[in-house]
Amino acid sequence: MSVKTLQELFIHELSDIYSAEKQLTRALPKMARAATHPELIAAFESHLEETRTQVERIDQIVEAAGLSLKRIKCAAMEGLVEEGKDVIDGVDQGPVRDAALIAAAQKVEHYEIASYGTLCALARLLKFPAIEKLLQETLAEEKNADQKLTALATTAVNEEALEAA
Amino acid sequence: MSVKTLQELFIHELSDIYSAEKQLTRALPKMARAATHPELIAAFESHLEETRTQVERIDQIVEAAGLSLKRIKCAAMEGLVEEGKDVIDGVDQGPVRDAALIAAAQKVEHYEIASYGTLCALARLLKFPAIEKLLQETLAEEKNADQKLTALATTAVNEEALEAA
Repeated sequence: MSVKTLQELFIHELSDIYSAEKQLTRALPKMARAATHPELIAAFESHLEETRTQVERIDQIVEAAGLSLKRIKCAAMEGLVEEGKDVIDGVDQGPVRDAALIAAAQKVEHYEIASYGTLCALARLLKFPAIEKLLQETLAEEKNADQKLTALATTAVNEEALEAA
Repeated sequence: MSVKTLQELFIHELSDIYSAEKQLTRALPKMARAATHPELIAAFESHLEETRTQVERIDQIVEAAGLSLKRIKCAAMEGLVEEGKDVIDGVDQGPVRDAALIAAAQKVEHYEIASYGTLCALARLLKFPAIEKLLQETLAEEKNADQKLTALATTAVNEEALEAA
């Protein structure tokens, strides 16, 4: 990381989340296969589609603004994906694993909420209104995905897990 | 990770955030030293105090409930702390670094918000009201710390960074 200006910081943050989203497109299908509750499987599958759209949105931003992203691997998302793998390896398929998958997925969503929040603030400061609008769309999707998981965690999935325990 | 019941999941999540908080108590003093803006330095220092209290709160929970935490190292927080180090190594001291430090710190806060959100939901399901109350206190502090950073990012710090660029 070598950053001297806010615009370079914006490019760094965008490169970081681009890596994170790409990692997530590989992790989400595994999480969907590892889940049991049909609503949770559906939530992971629909968020996979959203994540692919979010990657394309970054491609769009990069192209429209003539930016060039840096090749970096997002270390935090590596750790988060590793935690998701631990769940799949360490918890048998069923409602308790579903609860653990939701916990792992909400950590991922919160990483993205923080990241897009920063990117929106930087885009606003740098006076990139068209870019900010695209990033706000993604931010709203991430917040919505997190809320969907909260709803699942506090209703169907965990109630089932409690009975299983 | 070997988890069969919701109570074991609760202990796993609590062990994970315990490791995360401990890592953070070592990272925050470095972030405070690396920052420039007095309000940001103060925010890191006051959150260090809060984080120490949050570690003690987990000790309290463990003791009162007779739980025994697992020795795990939170991989996600390792990645997040690494990103904070990259900022310190890759951005010269000044307002742009301050903006980058805020971005890194907000990712940390969001990890904690997700984690304590899960822990509160699990404590509620498991009918641990006293534990849930303590965890809610920490969750409120984490949300407040994140909001303080947003306020700093959208006012003083980034305005200065723009002028520096």
